[in-house]
Amino acid sequence: MPRIRFTVAYDGRPYAGWQIQPNAPTVQATLQQALAIALGSPTTVHGSGRTDAGVHAWGQVFHIETERASIPENRWPAALNARLPHTIRILDARYVPDDFHARFSATSKTYCYKIRRTPFLNPFEPGLIWHCPRPMDESVMEDCLGLLQGEHDFRAFAALRGNEPTPLPDSYFVRTIYKTSFSKEEDCLTLTFTGSGFLYKMVRLMIGGLYTAAVGKITRQEFKRLLNTPSTGDKSPLCAPPDGLYLMQVYYGEE
Amino acid sequence: MPRIRFTVAYDGRPYAGWQIQPNAPTVQATLQQALAIALGSPTTVHGSGRTDAGVHAWGQVFHIETERASIPENRWPAALNARLPHTIRILDARYVPDDFHARFSATSKTYCYKIRRTPFLNPFEPGLIWHCPRPMDESVMEDCLGLLQGEHDFRAFAALRGNEPTPLPDSYFVRTIYKTSFSKEEDCLTLTFTGSGFLYKMVRLMIGGLYTAAVGKITRQEFKRLLNTPSTGDKSPLCAPPDGLYLMQVYYGEE
Repeated sequence: MPRIRFTVAYDGRPYAGWQIQPNAPTVQATLQQALAIALGSPTTVHGSGRTDAGVHAWGQVFHIETERASIPENRWPAALNARLPHTIRILDARYVPDDFHARFSATSKTYCYKIRRTPFLNPFEPGLIWHCPRPMDESVMEDCLGLLQGEHDFRAFAALRGNEPTPLPDSYFVRTIYKTSFSKEEDCLTLTFTGSGFLYKMVRLMIGGLYTAAVGKITRQEFKRLLNTPSTGDKSPLCAPPDGLYLMQVYYGEE
Repeated sequence: MPRIRFTVAYDGRPYAGWQIQPNAPTVQATLQQALAIALGSPTTVHGSGRTDAGVHAWGQVFHIETERASIPENRWPAALNARLPHTIRILDARYVPDDFHARFSATSKTYCYKIRRTPFLNPFEPGLIWHCPRPMDESVMEDCLGLLQGEHDFRAFAALRGNEPTPLPDSYFVRTIYKTSFSKEEDCLTLTFTGSGFLYKMVRLMIGGLYTAAVGKITRQEFKRLLNTPSTGDKSPLCAPPDGLYLMQVYYGEE
């Protein structure tokens, strides 16, 4: 059956995360409802991965299989957006080969995390940024951020869902972060991560660790040890809130 | 009694405007409730002027009279913000002389209006910007915006509240716009207006007129006539939605 790949942006605040669950609104469920109306029959939304409750996206990707290949791809966004709440917007749609899979074909992803440093959070941003008014050494944050680049065992920066395979293979927590970046604009810090894949809550646990180092509660050496000596079993001391986290882009081989 | 001047930012979406009214949440009422708790007694919030339902502020100003002059001015923002919803933030407080009045001492104000030109409005912006996807000639908008500068009879860009004095003095609709500006950044147009004062719905009616000219429904000459020939009784053809409107700053003589 023909496949369509969609790019979607969403405000995570009203949703209990990406993945369908009973008795709570989710992005995946909301998309499936809109698609079922547009297509006239139920369909399954295959995402590139989950995002947690309250996490946002500018460039989440999902695919569906459909018989309705007669609709031109440039018509799909408007057709679906008309049936979606304003907090979810389809940005792009294109027909893709049968072997494309939003999750399994993904080669890397970029997340960004936003931190607001003003004494008071402005009234337009609750839930959209992490408010960190207390003094911190931003150069320590930038420095430790750079340490995260490369291939590492990220178990100190991973939460367990409880459905992991047992025994866990040695490589289970190994990921590669290809690139990080740090920018500051008008009291807003933006930290970005491009990597081969991200473990459950990994970005938020990395941000929590970076914050803890920046406010001086752990040293740069202690942060480094979390990254380089996973065998100690030590964990990042803090999981940052979902508010500041945005899935920016999912990359596929061809790009 | 000592007076305190406050600067406040608010997201207008949850409020039925600035001014207190029965059975609807307003910014003024919310501020008075927080102040009554902080001060231990009811107080009146005197704003620089009203904003309509759904209109936002980065720099609204109000004053109160209070006996509690013992609280240092730099403590006031945190004390009130702790008692306010996140959609209202006190940014600044300072003690001012007895003859300061938020409304009567104001010498000018700056408003800005934001327009998003993308095909779809992003999921973070509903209610915070006017979504105008249809083709328009932005240079016509910029050109007509410039015409608004100077002293004019703005009756074509004013709505009536119904409580105006009768007979209306000739000068009733005369205002001076000292400065306008037009900028574009990533498909977001920002139009700003600094003026001696603004009539009821004046910015939204100006924006509506500018939009109507930009999409080619009225000519530049017709727009000019609205401004220069108020005696015709013609009105701006459109009142733009409150979504894109922000009260940015209120100026007082000393600044």
